[in-house]
Amino acid sequence: MSLKILLIHGPNLNLLGKREPGVYGNLTMEQINDRLQAFAAEAGFELKTTQSNSEGALVDAIQDGGEWANGIVINAGAYTHTSIALRDAISSVNLPAVEVHLSNVHARESFRHNSYIAAVCLGTIAGFGWRSYLLGLEGLVTHLESG
Amino acid sequence: MSLKILLIHGPNLNLLGKREPGVYGNLTMEQINDRLQAFAAEAGFELKTTQSNSEGALVDAIQDGGEWANGIVINAGAYTHTSIALRDAISSVNLPAVEVHLSNVHARESFRHNSYIAAVCLGTIAGFGWRSYLLGLEGLVTHLESG
Amino acid sequence: MSLKILLIHGPNLNLLGKREPGVYGNLTMEQINDRLQAFAAEAGFELKTTQSNSEGALVDAIQDGGEWANGIVINAGAYTHTSIALRDAISSVNLPAVEVHLSNVHARESFRHNSYIAAVCLGTIAGFGWRSYLLGLEGLVTHLESG
Amino acid sequence: MSLKILLIHGPNLNLLGKREPGVYGNLTMEQINDRLQAFAAEAGFELKTTQSNSEGALVDAIQDGGEWANGIVINAGAYTHTSIALRDAISSVNLPAVEVHLSNVHARESFRHNSYIAAVCLGTIAGFGWRSYLLGLEGLVTHLESG
Amino acid sequence: MSLKILLIHGPNLNLLGKREPGVYGNLTMEQINDRLQAFAAEAGFELKTTQSNSEGALVDAIQDGGEWANGIVINAGAYTHTSIALRDAISSVNLPAVEVHLSNVHARESFRHNSYIAAVCLGTIAGFGWRSYLLGLEGLVTHLESG
Amino acid sequence: MSLKILLIHGPNLNLLGKREPGVYGNLTMEQINDRLQAFAAEAGFELKTTQSNSEGALVDAIQDGGEWANGIVINAGAYTHTSIALRDAISSVNLPAVEVHLSNVHARESFRHNSYIAAVCLGTIAGFGWRSYLLGLEGLVTHLESG
Amino acid sequence: MSLKILLIHGPNLNLLGKREPGVYGNLTMEQINDRLQAFAAEAGFELKTTQSNSEGALVDAIQDGGEWANGIVINAGAYTHTSIALRDAISSVNLPAVEVHLSNVHARESFRHNSYIAAVCLGTIAGFGWRSYLLGLEGLVTHLESG
Amino acid sequence: MSLKILLIHGPNLNLLGKREPGVYGNLTMEQINDRLQAFAAEAGFELKTTQSNSEGALVDAIQDGGEWANGIVINAGAYTHTSIALRDAISSVNLPAVEVHLSNVHARESFRHNSYIAAVCLGTIAGFGWRSYLLGLEGLVTHLESG
Amino acid sequence: MSLKILLIHGPNLNLLGKREPGVYGNLTMEQINDRLQAFAAEAGFELKTTQSNSEGALVDAIQDGGEWANGIVINAGAYTHTSIALRDAISSVNLPAVEVHLSNVHARESFRHNSYIAAVCLGTIAGFGWRSYLLGLEGLVTHLESG
Amino acid sequence: MSLKILLIHGPNLNLLGKREPGVYGNLTMEQINDRLQAFAAEAGFELKTTQSNSEGALVDAIQDGGEWANGIVINAGAYTHTSIALRDAISSVNLPAVEVHLSNVHARESFRHNSYIAAVCLGTIAGFGWRSYLLGLEGLVTHLESG
Amino acid sequence: MSLKILLIHGPNLNLLGKREPGVYGNLTMEQINDRLQAFAAEAGFELKTTQSNSEGALVDAIQDGGEWANGIVINAGAYTHTSIALRDAISSVNLPAVEVHLSNVHARESFRHNSYIAAVCLGTIAGFGWRSYLLGLEGLVTHLESG
Amino acid sequence: MSLKILLIHGPNLNLLGKREPGVYGNLTMEQINDRLQAFAAEAGFELKTTQSNSEGALVDAIQDGGEWANGIVINAGAYTHTSIALRDAISSVNLPAVEVHLSNVHARESFRHNSYIAAVCLGTIAGFGWRSYLLGLEGLVTHLESG
Repeated sequence: MSLKILLIHGPNLNLLGKREPGVYGNLTMEQINDRLQAFAAEAGFELKTTQSNSEGALVDAIQDGGEWANGIVINAGAYTHTSIALRDAISSVNLPAVEVHLSNVHARESFRHNSYIAAVCLGTIAGFGWRSYLLGLEGLVTHLESG
Repeated sequence: MSLKILLIHGPNLNLLGKREPGVYGNLTMEQINDRLQAFAAEAGFELKTTQSNSEGALVDAIQDGGEWANGIVINAGAYTHTSIALRDAISSVNLPAVEVHLSNVHARESFRHNSYIAAVCLGTIAGFGWRSYLLGLEGLVTHLESG
Repeated sequence: MSLKILLIHGPNLNLLGKREPGVYGNLTMEQINDRLQAFAAEAGFELKTTQSNSEGALVDAIQDGGEWANGIVINAGAYTHTSIALRDAISSVNLPAVEVHLSNVHARESFRHNSYIAAVCLGTIAGFGWRSYLLGLEGLVTHLESG
Repeated sequence: MSLKILLIHGPNLNLLGKREPGVYGNLTMEQINDRLQAFAAEAGFELKTTQSNSEGALVDAIQDGGEWANGIVINAGAYTHTSIALRDAISSVNLPAVEVHLSNVHARESFRHNSYIAAVCLGTIAGFGWRSYLLGLEGLVTHLESG
Repeated sequence: MSLKILLIHGPNLNLLGKREPGVYGNLTMEQINDRLQAFAAEAGFELKTTQSNSEGALVDAIQDGGEWANGIVINAGAYTHTSIALRDAISSVNLPAVEVHLSNVHARESFRHNSYIAAVCLGTIAGFGWRSYLLGLEGLVTHLESG
Repeated sequence: MSLKILLIHGPNLNLLGKREPGVYGNLTMEQINDRLQAFAAEAGFELKTTQSNSEGALVDAIQDGGEWANGIVINAGAYTHTSIALRDAISSVNLPAVEVHLSNVHARESFRHNSYIAAVCLGTIAGFGWRSYLLGLEGLVTHLESG
Repeated sequence: MSLKILLIHGPNLNLLGKREPGVYGNLTMEQINDRLQAFAAEAGFELKTTQSNSEGALVDAIQDGGEWANGIVINAGAYTHTSIALRDAISSVNLPAVEVHLSNVHARESFRHNSYIAAVCLGTIAGFGWRSYLLGLEGLVTHLESG
Repeated sequence: MSLKILLIHGPNLNLLGKREPGVYGNLTMEQINDRLQAFAAEAGFELKTTQSNSEGALVDAIQDGGEWANGIVINAGAYTHTSIALRDAISSVNLPAVEVHLSNVHARESFRHNSYIAAVCLGTIAGFGWRSYLLGLEGLVTHLESG
Repeated sequence: MSLKILLIHGPNLNLLGKREPGVYGNLTMEQINDRLQAFAAEAGFELKTTQSNSEGALVDAIQDGGEWANGIVINAGAYTHTSIALRDAISSVNLPAVEVHLSNVHARESFRHNSYIAAVCLGTIAGFGWRSYLLGLEGLVTHLESG
Repeated sequence: MSLKILLIHGPNLNLLGKREPGVYGNLTMEQINDRLQAFAAEAGFELKTTQSNSEGALVDAIQDGGEWANGIVINAGAYTHTSIALRDAISSVNLPAVEVHLSNVHARESFRHNSYIAAVCLGTIAGFGWRSYLLGLEGLVTHLESG
Repeated sequence: MSLKILLIHGPNLNLLGKREPGVYGNLTMEQINDRLQAFAAEAGFELKTTQSNSEGALVDAIQDGGEWANGIVINAGAYTHTSIALRDAISSVNLPAVEVHLSNVHARESFRHNSYIAAVCLGTIAGFGWRSYLLGLEGLVTHLESG
Repeated sequence: MSLKILLIHGPNLNLLGKREPGVYGNLTMEQINDRLQAFAAEAGFELKTTQSNSEGALVDAIQDGGEWANGIVINAGAYTHTSIALRDAISSVNLPAVEVHLSNVHARESFRHNSYIAAVCLGTIAGFGWRSYLLGLEGLVTHLESG
């Protein structure tokens, strides 16, 4: 049976492509999702994507992932730096999770240097634009297959 | 007329019983609620319970409690440590509130040592598993009756 | 064509007039909105108002403002001090925003001294009660007209 | 055989009832002990109480408790925030201990927010006046019986 | 009898219009004062303006204001962040004071984020260029009239 | 009836005169007590002196003072910087207390710059050698007589 | 030849008696100076007093004291906590100086707990109202005479 | 012409495979290098690998890379957290660099949470064991090709 | 005449051998004292040992040592990290002192990383179990003999 | 036309030669100024010198320099560490400025390690006694000539 | 077969005997090594000594020790406080290590109070001059023999 | 006999002229050395220059300087902010040293504001580009000649 991966986009990522393209690139979230679905199809795993601006809805999404998925890729956006609830959700569902960021968060404001979720994730990928997602999926799938 | 108590469960507590039972015990949130309702029935007060993963919904719940309840018992979970909005909601409704935690938060990560809501609560109970709720209800009811 | 301003009230502001009137005054949020609409009518700009206790819904509101408004006045309440997501939303929509507070936040607890959104706003107004909104609207409209 | 509980009062608690009754209530330590003995009698466990203003004597008391008791309830007063020796004593005797405080320490000066002993205790109860002891005993006894 | 307002400009504000016009605008302090006098005349209150680069002279000015004025608008410039003496002067004269800043101080260096005077002022206005003074006067006068 | 003052010497002050005379002077504690008794006799108040190296015994002494004295002069020595229990004792007995130090504590190691007891004392005197006690007694007596 | 003492009052102390009498007492600075002159006459030393709101003028005054006085008593007010220039001035003139405060600065805001000048003074006296000056003069004169 | 990538292993990575295999895996550095060379051959880019325990030698290696390579992948090991010299070297050579870590550094001691080099790198990959290198190479090559 | 060494055991060390033997070893304090006496006899110096759980009693013991001993070996246990009084006692008696710890305190909780007494001791030995005392005695005796 | 340099001495520097000659040398400020004038004459630039103990007067001096000089050499003394107003003045006048110190400020108290003005100066010279001025002038003149 | 111990001297220790003999004693590193070899011969273990000023070379030395030795004694000098690479090397080779210092590092500058290597060492010895090495060897050998 | 000066360039300075010429200028390290040699020839002192990217090699160089030179000029580059070993080396060789920086380090990232070596140097010069070396040599030579 094929692997199932849940991809979660956090707050403001629904503005991708419209928002500061110099920093985040020209692709919309939908276009990115399409490319990732294409990759999933090619690599033979199932991919579900979701987005929310609400911390609580993201907690819900992670909990739902716990019922369905084999692993999670999450770009928690600003909640990365402020949400212990997301951290608890990830550690509750007991699935390997990969933290991704479009930009290199360590080259930005100091309040973006702390990640509450990093410590409960398998790994972190940041700075490769939309390809951070691609690398994150690849890393997660390989981890699950080699597990 | 009998006292009315609102019991609020915060984020991820809907996973109780499924999540790390070694830490949090085997009871589900529903089973805990049943036991607390039994206690309420026996002690002669009315108990309403609610849960949400969303900070905003918890603020709503506290505000609603302000219309109906004589007191609040709240396990704010991870929002205990990050939410000033919950603190403001509690101090706005001007009801005695009791902060409860299943685990002993002071024996965990340092970011769990700060509570934004403690200072606006009547008291705090932590570390007794599901019985923290029981002690919290008892403490609150006695306080209201002796008030 | 007349200017369009979005006014956003954050968490617990729906309790205005009921909550600690000594600190926040006797006017309800609805009464304040009425006065601000009267001002808008007189000054010849369009005003839409909204309130939410949810950080995510406030992010949504700001994003929606990005589609419709020429500027934003926001009293983010407690989220002022904890929400990087609101900051990102404001800087994403690329509209001039004015941060307002009813009370003088710097005369209160130290955890209210930091504002995550100030740095992405045009300006800040605090301490004038409901008139902080009025001054904020006036400052924003003048800025937009003189821009 | 019935359970044996040692209750330890820390510094300045011998002044209870005389000292700032607005904050700590009108009951003297002796009157509180009487009520707790009544509760112990009713609940069927043995209770020994002791008080000292000296950190060293409190360490001695805990060590003695290690010889006799099945569990400890301790209100370490000011030493809560300054004594690593008490912490070491509690973890040495390897008994379940419950930390209690009459007032809500988190609503007071910031130097009262840290507890050196919390991390080696089963749980914490604060803010219920003399009933904090009652809830602490109840929580401890139930824990021991259900253990 | 008409209200009397003292407007105080702190250090380096005498360079306005000459100094980094991109940041602070093209108006000189004298031109700003003229506009504010026009506003005062129209609004029917008396306005006295003063400037000094010296912390001590600003303390003197505030004390003098205590003899004459009904309220103070102050842009303390760099002394905002370093002067407890100005804070003490403001709280001594026991007049409502409004803190204004031309630029949005929270978007600048972190040593400009602390204000020693905010906590003893009625309110704060920052980021609207020379119009910060105008909004400050308006807020102060309305406060005094509605007081 | 004459005033009664309790003078409390903290840890290591029994070594005065033997210990680093360059820093603390050549007088022993007994010789200082004699001089202070002479001053008390002359000034017409009753003086009791005590010393202990134990924090708990000092708490006891303060509590005893609460039964007998009209005011307290205390050189808490090293406990000044580490004892919240002494602070609580002083605020419990509700007597005016004066904190004294032989040396200028602010010119020494930074861990001697904090005083837990200063905030609950009437005043502080430091740096005048044994005469710090004399000035402390004088200040306290004058305060009590003028009270 | 008689001793010469320079007494320096810092910022806002010229408002004494007018300013918050509940905190600082009813005596004006002039009345305090008169009482201190009376004490000087009686004790047989010469006393010069001065006041300024300006840090620079206070530095000048200390330097002038270096030419004339045998010792300095200084209440640096708010500059106590912010002025390294005053510290340097005191250590430059190489005279014994005594730091005095009317109120107990350690019982006030935390930014008043640091003193830049304490470390270069002979000693500190705080909390005795206008009598802090008296005790300071007495302590300084005795020190000079016994020196 | 094919791309040239320099891969740099920092201190103690020569012990890979021998050192705590539970944490770092069973592959030696040589075996990892072989796999990465295989990947490079397949992907059509040139790969040079080097290792040193010396901060200075790593600076030299980066400088040499500046002469030869189109991009750098670096696992700076412990120097990640202590070396500003490596940061300066990377920003000097003006090549895109990718920071990789075998383990999830954010789940380890807090002194491993700061990275001096992250801010001058294109991106960061951590937590995927030896595959962190693989993902880093892939991310870098794609970046260079799409650049 | 033979050297005289005072060995002081601090709080909770009377529980040695009973307390967490995995961490502290199986020997009781009495058995350790016997071995150290044997060593003293063999090495030709006189050894007195004492233990207390009370900070004040330990200060007394050090002061007594000042009358009798040529040097001190002290395991201050938890007071190492909280007691300035012990530090003052050691520097008062002006004897060479050696600080010992059974466990490696730097590998434990961060609040055990600070030692108030280290700076006034000749040297420190930690981590060798009961043999830390042995090495401490040896180091002290050699120092005294070679002095 | 020859270059014009303004040299500014900050607080307490008028005491040079009288004050701690071991630290600051035997030359008075006037003698230093003479030597610097001689250097200016020889090097062919115009030099104006000024001194004040007042922060405000120093701000005035810098502003005046902005009208007349091509560059500024400033020894801000204690204000280096406390004055944001001086920093703003320097950045306002938009002239190259050189910060000089007689002593090596980094080898002194930690509160002298921060310089508010360094970041808006061309460069810094410290530790060469009166020759720091000479090197500062030389560095500034060369910079201006090579500019 | 006899035990093998590697003794590592860190940066600047090659200057021993030449450098501040008042602090570090008159013995050169070579003379110390000779004495330690004599001790090793007498005690029946093999001792290899090495020194380097290079952090990388010290990492190499520890790694080499992992191939040959049964334990390590290391005086990491200044790298004690700055090198995580040394810490990683020690924990990699999985040998018992003893940290030694000639001087009492806790009585020196605060930046010498942190040790990165202490937590991965068996124990620490500091303050006994060259005999710190001797005690360290003795402690290590006894540990290995009793292991 | 002529003075001998050792000039030490730290990490990455071998890239001068190639690296960010906008920041550091167009001259290579070799060209700078040539100019400094010309200056030395003219001024009549002997100059030896060296560079390394290795902290250990720089320690070696300073130690070698201790054998040959009368003084040291050092641009420690990034090691300025991280190396206690360099500090110890400088204080060991007991030669006057001058710290130089090409750029104004205080106008850069905050981690460049601390210098470990400043406190053991005669003085510091920063911000004058390659002329910082020239001024440093001049300052050092004059110091040595006037010594």
